[in-house]
Amino acid sequence: MSDSSPGVVDLLGVLAYAELTAFLRLAEDATRHAPSLTDRAALGDLAATEYAHFRLLRDRIASLEVDPEQAMAPFVGPLDDWHAQTAPGDWLEALVKAYVGTGIALDFYREAAAGVDTATRELVEEVLADEGRSQFAVERVSAAIEADPTQSGRLALWARRLVGEALSQGQHVAAARPELAKLLIEAAGEDIARMFARLTEAHGKRMAALGLTPGP
Amino acid sequence: MSDSSPGVVDLLGVLAYAELTAFLRLAEDATRHAPSLTDRAALGDLAATEYAHFRLLRDRIASLEVDPEQAMAPFVGPLDDWHAQTAPGDWLEALVKAYVGTGIALDFYREAAAGVDTATRELVEEVLADEGRSQFAVERVSAAIEADPTQSGRLALWARRLVGEALSQGQHVAAARPELAKLLIEAAGEDIARMFARLTEAHGKRMAALGLTPGP
Repeated sequence: MSDSSPGVVDLLGVLAYAELTAFLRLAEDATRHAPSLTDRAALGDLAATEYAHFRLLRDRIASLEVDPEQAMAPFVGPLDDWHAQTAPGDWLEALVKAYVGTGIALDFYREAAAGVDTATRELVEEVLADEGRSQFAVERVSAAIEADPTQSGRLALWARRLVGEALSQGQHVAAARPELAKLLIEAAGEDIARMFARLTEAHGKRMAALGLTPGP
Repeated sequence: MSDSSPGVVDLLGVLAYAELTAFLRLAEDATRHAPSLTDRAALGDLAATEYAHFRLLRDRIASLEVDPEQAMAPFVGPLDDWHAQTAPGDWLEALVKAYVGTGIALDFYREAAAGVDTATRELVEEVLADEGRSQFAVERVSAAIEADPTQSGRLALWARRLVGEALSQGQHVAAARPELAKLLIEAAGEDIARMFARLTEAHGKRMAALGLTPGP
């Protein structure tokens, strides 16, 4: 039996729109920035996976007898704003965004899912599974930095901007959707500091994997 | 046993790149022009299907021990040019492009596949299957024209431009890839006029389904 409380519907709604828009933006980045057809197809591969995830989430929302469009609607503004403010200027920025920017967002969703019903949590875990996203971005970005170490400064700055914009939009979402914010706070229990430490540590690991310092 | 003659590799290569780029462009059109999340998801659905087709074609090319990137390379220029010259200005133009513009291109590929080995032809038929593309575009465009009949003039002009640009790029492709052109000519046999009549008739049917006159 799936839970259809407002917090759970919000979690499924924000994730569904995040996957739909990630799919469309990755496809756009692939068209604009991929330096070769192989790279374009590889980013297209990630994009198509996001779309499959969107479909799973949309179907789950519909099975709760909620209109998927309504469930996603509150999150269109903040997520579109995030993408508008973090449109990559080139291929390496697109890869860093796909790995670091999306990574921290997904960690938040995963934390929020810790306390929900088993059926929802299993679905969230399934759509948040990494599936090669890391390996592809890590290989390309770390090779590029090794070949030209001067890239690392601007990419580290870019990653910090991605995270800053994500936290800023996250605050808008939390203020507008208290039931969703409550999921995150309840999942953290009394130990919200430890949750932030986990998120920061995971972010630091992703930056290190790319060969970047998490800074500031 | 699959045929790996230059004409067949060209046919698989042009189709693979056509599907990859259709996927990416449809996703871009969905982001830019869809008037609702439902429409955005519906065009996203078409885009994801194109991607699945791309993957089938790429795997077939690789199984012939040809590098997919090399097989696609000759067609990147003409297909990118076609998309650049036919970037939709709004949602209805995007739908007409997805149905009419892609429709005539796919008819050409289908004709070219008539004379190839069974394994290739079956794969081509599979990736050219319509799968709801028509129904979605036809419903939306014909409803929009019924609601506002003044749209039909500009959309009919737009469709003619799509076909004109497709034929122009098709000529470049045929000139540059004689083995591919040979497939089409051999498939038509002595009756190239009848092949063109078939293509024109299919185009006219698509225009009529949208509520547009094929003219002039």
